[in-house]
Amino acid sequence: MAGKKVLIVYAHQEPKSFNGSLKDVAVEELRKQGCSVTVSDLYAMQFEPRATRNDIVGHVHNPEQFNYIVETREAYKRGGLSSDVVEEQKKVQEADLLIFQFPLYWFSMPAIMKGWMDRVLVQGFAYGFPEFYDSGLLKNKLALFSFTTGSPRETYTKGNTNGDIRYLLWPLQHGTMHFCGVKVLAPHMCFAPESVSEGQRKEMLTAWAQRLKTLWKEEPINCSSEWYFK
Amino acid sequence: MAGKKVLIVYAHQEPKSFNGSLKDVAVEELRKQGCSVTVSDLYAMQFEPRATRNDIVGHVHNPEQFNYIVETREAYKRGGLSSDVVEEQKKVQEADLLIFQFPLYWFSMPAIMKGWMDRVLVQGFAYGFPEFYDSGLLKNKLALFSFTTGSPRETYTKGNTNGDIRYLLWPLQHGTMHFCGVKVLAPHMCFAPESVSEGQRKEMLTAWAQRLKTLWKEEPINCSSEWYFK
Repeated sequence: MAGKKVLIVYAHQEPKSFNGSLKDVAVEELRKQGCSVTVSDLYAMQFEPRATRNDIVGHVHNPEQFNYIVETREAYKRGGLSSDVVEEQKKVQEADLLIFQFPLYWFSMPAIMKGWMDRVLVQGFAYGFPEFYDSGLLKNKLALFSFTTGSPRETYTKGNTNGDIRYLLWPLQHGTMHFCGVKVLAPHMCFAPESVSEGQRKEMLTAWAQRLKTLWKEEPINCSSEWYFK
Repeated sequence: MAGKKVLIVYAHQEPKSFNGSLKDVAVEELRKQGCSVTVSDLYAMQFEPRATRNDIVGHVHNPEQFNYIVETREAYKRGGLSSDVVEEQKKVQEADLLIFQFPLYWFSMPAIMKGWMDRVLVQGFAYGFPEFYDSGLLKNKLALFSFTTGSPRETYTKGNTNGDIRYLLWPLQHGTMHFCGVKVLAPHMCFAPESVSEGQRKEMLTAWAQRLKTLWKEEPINCSSEWYFK
């Protein structure tokens, strides 16, 4: 929708990968709609995933016993977070929609994207107490997890060994985005793109572009345990 | 149990933290039993969490289109993985038991530990096709997730906003360890150690030491969806 701002947080090492194409399709389609699109290309940025003392510029609140959560909360208050974190927080602040594009690694995001969550979503910026879940500080935003799997769709069903694909979305959609107040759109999954034909991969890209055309009309999911484990 | 080998994969920035104490207690108790204990102190090692081309030494299988899973599988076969990954694989290979000690970040491990999973558990080393789940290549090993939370126990129950604590263990215990054939012991949780008294923290440390005394007699959990979502 024209005027909307989108941040795509993208984690793949190879621009020519299928994840790269999914990201490109989103950038193109959303810009065509008149959206302003920013991409955080984590590997290209060599984004730091480790949560360390380096994230605090200058004064450390308690140098005797370093507590990352406390230190980043205090640093956020006085504008003392490292510049790469501040940069990402600005992008999040401006965005109406966050799209996370990644290949599934061990039923979750690649570590470089987990590090983005760990370091960017600082207390005071993304949540507080009691500003969490529906009252989270990012509550007027939307998020969408778009990812590829190695295994086909039928292995990610209830009763199958991998279980329902929704099980593994609990920490990401609920434990992270919902915790910060972000409303979650239905995830977008491309199952086993490496095991299908070139034609089928193209269909997957077209389906993604199609979905994006009407994305702004979608209702968020009801992000409670029923959605995941019913 | 005397003669057993234990690898503790530990992720906390501060040696004086409660996670640090839990790690120290485990090292001490297990050594007292005659176990051989190795610690991978990920922050102290500045362990690299990012899965990149740097993990392959020398020849890249397909430099035109870099595929991390394929490249690390091929590099593993010919002994061409980077030395830090090889070092961790050796520790895993020798271990009877893996203990993961960490503070919960966003319903999961800190990114530095997720990177350990992403980079160390390479195809051909930890799993293959059809060597996965009960046939996984690490099938004679045990794993135990020991972690701390920020929120108290009662918030991690079914029907409460955080949901049953078991929900968030699915990607870690089932999607990662079980996938590699590792049998999983019941997790060890210390809820909200920062919100309790010094006396209660000491009790938590004692309880952990006590559990470790009879750990080798424990039966693994039945790591299927029933355990998590029943």
